[in-house]
Amino acid sequence: MTETVSPRTPLSPTPRSTPTRVTDRARTDRADLDAVLDAGLICHLGVLLGGTPVVLPTAYGRDGDTLYLHGSTGAGNMRAALAADISVAVTLVDGVVYARSAMHFSMNYRSAVVLGRAREVTDHEERVHGLRVIVEHAAPGSWSRVRPPSKKELAATKVLALDLTEASVKIREGGPKDDEADIEAGGVWAGVLPLRQVWDAAIDSPDLAPGIPVPADVLQRADS
Amino acid sequence: MTETVSPRTPLSPTPRSTPTRVTDRARTDRADLDAVLDAGLICHLGVLLGGTPVVLPTAYGRDGDTLYLHGSTGAGNMRAALAADISVAVTLVDGVVYARSAMHFSMNYRSAVVLGRAREVTDHEERVHGLRVIVEHAAPGSWSRVRPPSKKELAATKVLALDLTEASVKIREGGPKDDEADIEAGGVWAGVLPLRQVWDAAIDSPDLAPGIPVPADVLQRADS
Repeated sequence: MTETVSPRTPLSPTPRSTPTRVTDRARTDRADLDAVLDAGLICHLGVLLGGTPVVLPTAYGRDGDTLYLHGSTGAGNMRAALAADISVAVTLVDGVVYARSAMHFSMNYRSAVVLGRAREVTDHEERVHGLRVIVEHAAPGSWSRVRPPSKKELAATKVLALDLTEASVKIREGGPKDDEADIEAGGVWAGVLPLRQVWDAAIDSPDLAPGIPVPADVLQRADS
Repeated sequence: MTETVSPRTPLSPTPRSTPTRVTDRARTDRADLDAVLDAGLICHLGVLLGGTPVVLPTAYGRDGDTLYLHGSTGAGNMRAALAADISVAVTLVDGVVYARSAMHFSMNYRSAVVLGRAREVTDHEERVHGLRVIVEHAAPGSWSRVRPPSKKELAATKVLALDLTEASVKIREGGPKDDEADIEAGGVWAGVLPLRQVWDAAIDSPDLAPGIPVPADVLQRADS
């Protein structure tokens, strides 16, 4: 695995975002960060809640150098996410690595962790834009088809923006890295069991009126 | 979605582990927690690192009422995980919920968040047991086939135990919950695009000697 460094769009290394373990998995090219964020479907948000680092799965979307998150204005998590630094992890597991010794078992994965202080989006246009980015990340092609947020819905929703300036990316690929002695001893199978996510055929909502076809963007995604 | 409460093995609700939003998704049966933890492959660990709630993907395993984690003795994350409360999130995304309005888009998912103070496992037998539980979670059936941890490997590894006493479980299933007016307006498709993880065929390690077949437990998993 070769580390590539782009002088155009480097990630900004800081002590808390610089991996210290198994550093050959670390990537420092901004394109790697974008690729992981764009490939993920949900993120895990870390917020400081009553002194505890609480992890919560949530939706997100990326537009350029900004990651958007959203939540209910009534949620303590959203208030906590604005009161201190947060982290956002996006992880894709690509397989289980079977080794010849217990301690060399591993996973193949693509992982991004973004750190920083989130900004509450207050400008109306950017709030709607952020929500569009989140919906389009979860369901590409949907925004223009559906009813946009109402004033009431917007009033009940916080939109958070996190700059992608401090982040780490780790990618593990390939087979096990066994000890020479274990390889030479032979006899034990070693390899990778690849894992991937697949979409199944779309299911109509039970309350869908007859004659409304599945949109092309949903059909295409199910075939992807 | 019906909430089931088992008087035998309830989850212990505390303010920080009690979901406050969309509470019809919350489950309080201990069996639901076990099912999510057993179905997940990796977790997202939240640790307090220099005042920041840092989220990290990592392996885990469950044995009864104990969740096991491990890491390098040299990792700051492991020290941080013992110095303050942690949280561990396991999330499975089962589909994207396409709604008739932007703010009702959602995901179907199974999610567990465990909170508490981790205990460093120091007893030799339990350390090996914890590592076995973690390896068997990632690769069921493997432990007895491979070389066990050496003294040197054990010395370089921290094993953490987290009691499953404080946890929340949320499960969302089914179609969109659209507003009546949007359903009546008609014209927009609504439904679920299901997502699932599949194993592909096992890939031999490039350094595997000829004539070593893929073990039955790996073959069976690839077919599952």
